[in-house]
Amino acid sequence: MISKAKSKFIKSLKIKKYRKQEQCFVVEGRKSVRELLASDYDVVMVLGTPAFLSGIHARTETEVVEASEPDLVSLGTFESNDGALAVARMRAEGLLFPAEGEWMLALDDIRDPGNLGTIIRIADWYGIGKIVASLETADQYNPKVISASMGSFLRVNLCYAELSTYLEAVGVPVAGAFLDGESLHGLSFGDSGILVIGNESRGISDAVAGRVTMRVTIPGYGGAESLNAAAATAVILDNLRRSQRNV
Amino acid sequence: MISKAKSKFIKSLKIKKYRKQEQCFVVEGRKSVRELLASDYDVVMVLGTPAFLSGIHARTETEVVEASEPDLVSLGTFESNDGALAVARMRAEGLLFPAEGEWMLALDDIRDPGNLGTIIRIADWYGIGKIVASLETADQYNPKVISASMGSFLRVNLCYAELSTYLEAVGVPVAGAFLDGESLHGLSFGDSGILVIGNESRGISDAVAGRVTMRVTIPGYGGAESLNAAAATAVILDNLRRSQRNV
Repeated sequence: MISKAKSKFIKSLKIKKYRKQEQCFVVEGRKSVRELLASDYDVVMVLGTPAFLSGIHARTETEVVEASEPDLVSLGTFESNDGALAVARMRAEGLLFPAEGEWMLALDDIRDPGNLGTIIRIADWYGIGKIVASLETADQYNPKVISASMGSFLRVNLCYAELSTYLEAVGVPVAGAFLDGESLHGLSFGDSGILVIGNESRGISDAVAGRVTMRVTIPGYGGAESLNAAAATAVILDNLRRSQRNV
Repeated sequence: MISKAKSKFIKSLKIKKYRKQEQCFVVEGRKSVRELLASDYDVVMVLGTPAFLSGIHARTETEVVEASEPDLVSLGTFESNDGALAVARMRAEGLLFPAEGEWMLALDDIRDPGNLGTIIRIADWYGIGKIVASLETADQYNPKVISASMGSFLRVNLCYAELSTYLEAVGVPVAGAFLDGESLHGLSFGDSGILVIGNESRGISDAVAGRVTMRVTIPGYGGAESLNAAAATAVILDNLRRSQRNV
């Protein structure tokens, strides 16, 4: 049985203000909740169908509550739920910087939560463990970000910063995609740096563009004016990893 | 002034059944409508703000109707409209086949209209002009497909077919991404063929997998289990074009 107070608390976490206040966020769906429980995140609460709960091992500090799929849908953000929902505690995240031999991503106003989640998943695929996002980028704990990341939010750390100041301070090569840059296909990226991904419609802002030291271009062969932000991220990271292997 | 009958007709086109019956579809937004008018599509009707209409040249057979932005939002699918909406006639599309020296895409149940539109845009970027989609793939004239394609629906032709039968008949190399294929980074794709993109959650179906002659793998470097369908399409096409340039 889910108490009224619990239900109100979980539903409040759809809103950024309350997530910030409670320092908690919601994870929906069996696969993501299972991965969350296996991670080192502090899980406050797991709600699930009896079938789901019988197959998991929650730590003693995690409250376990039985719930039907319709209950879970009503608590969550999505039109369906396959049997699990959890509340986890945010982690304090200071500013992130690239270590020696590490590439990071920088996001210049990725506004759409679905795009942000997809980019986190792509970063994870390409072994990028740190992202710095501009202050206007979507909230990493938005349920749509968590869902679109397909569990990758557990492996990729993200911090927020005023991006042009951050990039000026960090002192490593900064790559960014523009229409007049050097073709990706011939490029050697070097072993560390930061790749900037621009806003979905405006691209990289002028203030951030002024910090870019490697202007790259994704070769195009047809009529489209641009690729969407997530596809561009995947293509650039694929070329980056390939160029590192060939060194 | 938009008549009741006109309003009813335009709104009915949100539904596939009526699109099919009327053989018409809706295009929303200034940029896409402008590109539509410059294409060889038959445009039945353009609705726009006075500012938009003063800047366009519609053919004489196209009905031109003044409308406010709130009117356009109420007629269309999206939460905003920047001043233009058009109704265009579908084109009769027979089965498409790859010409000598041409690569096509095949979509094995891409269900989400946003994903389909994004894939059409990516195809256009990489100079792919033809797509064959399984019968369960989203409708190419769904407003969300048209919108996500960012005008690329005008340059990329799409037909529907029972995919495994089609691929058996067509007799060209068929590439598809699997976890146990050959790395994309070392591969030469050859000058023509069909690249199969699998369903968002299930990947390539068994029936279609049986027609694949080149099993390829996108090299991964981190913890994510897979890339999303659109990002995978972009990465594979980037490698395909690169391998052709290097021949």
